[in-house]
Amino acid sequence: MNTLEIGKKLVELCREGKNEEAVNTLLAEDVISVEAGGPPGTDPMTKGIEGVRGKGVWWRENHDIHSAKVEGPWPNGDKFIVRFTYDVTFKPQNMRFTMEEAALYTVANGKIVKEEFFYSMG
Amino acid sequence: MNTLEIGKKLVELCREGKNEEAVNTLLAEDVISVEAGGPPGTDPMTKGIEGVRGKGVWWRENHDIHSAKVEGPWPNGDKFIVRFTYDVTFKPQNMRFTMEEAALYTVANGKIVKEEFFYSMG
Repeated sequence: MNTLEIGKKLVELCREGKNEEAVNTLLAEDVISVEAGGPPGTDPMTKGIEGVRGKGVWWRENHDIHSAKVEGPWPNGDKFIVRFTYDVTFKPQNMRFTMEEAALYTVANGKIVKEEFFYSMG
Repeated sequence: MNTLEIGKKLVELCREGKNEEAVNTLLAEDVISVEAGGPPGTDPMTKGIEGVRGKGVWWRENHDIHSAKVEGPWPNGDKFIVRFTYDVTFKPQNMRFTMEEAALYTVANGKIVKEEFFYSMG
């Protein structure tokens, strides 16, 4: 699959709530995942698909997803951008909020080798 | 201004249609501007603020802008993403269409040093 095809597949799977399948089928084993920020002392960069799976598990266990909007992909060369808008409740604090972010993906050899998430910190 | 402040200013100016002012006040002299594509034989990369101004002149002379939506900015480190949705008529062909794109900006020393535009080619 080329960059645009991978982008379209990712959007399709995320719209169907199949985020785990997207990770398992579209990401490279040595993918690098970069958050915009996080709690003090934590590393915004995760290396390797196992770490990315771990972030997904944490996300699903800690959030009730009321709705999700996934827009894009918008490509440029070996990269594409997707926009995510989630209406979620963070379960530990029973706090409902809208999470808006854009994600920049880099593709090499038919797999996503880097994902970078862009959002404002609270 | 830091990255987020520059992003907010860019969005504010573009929402007001002040795109020229955004170029003149927020971009570095040696800014690099990268399109997702273009006519065969053209270089998708423009180097320097004069070339960026030239793209802006061409854009405004050739399009009637019926409405513009500017969303973001979504930051990560020294970069931020903005989404643009334009309802325009391309005047040479009297063709009205919706242009959707995401732009990735890189900041250094308080100026935008790189802008990359992401969109699907017709």
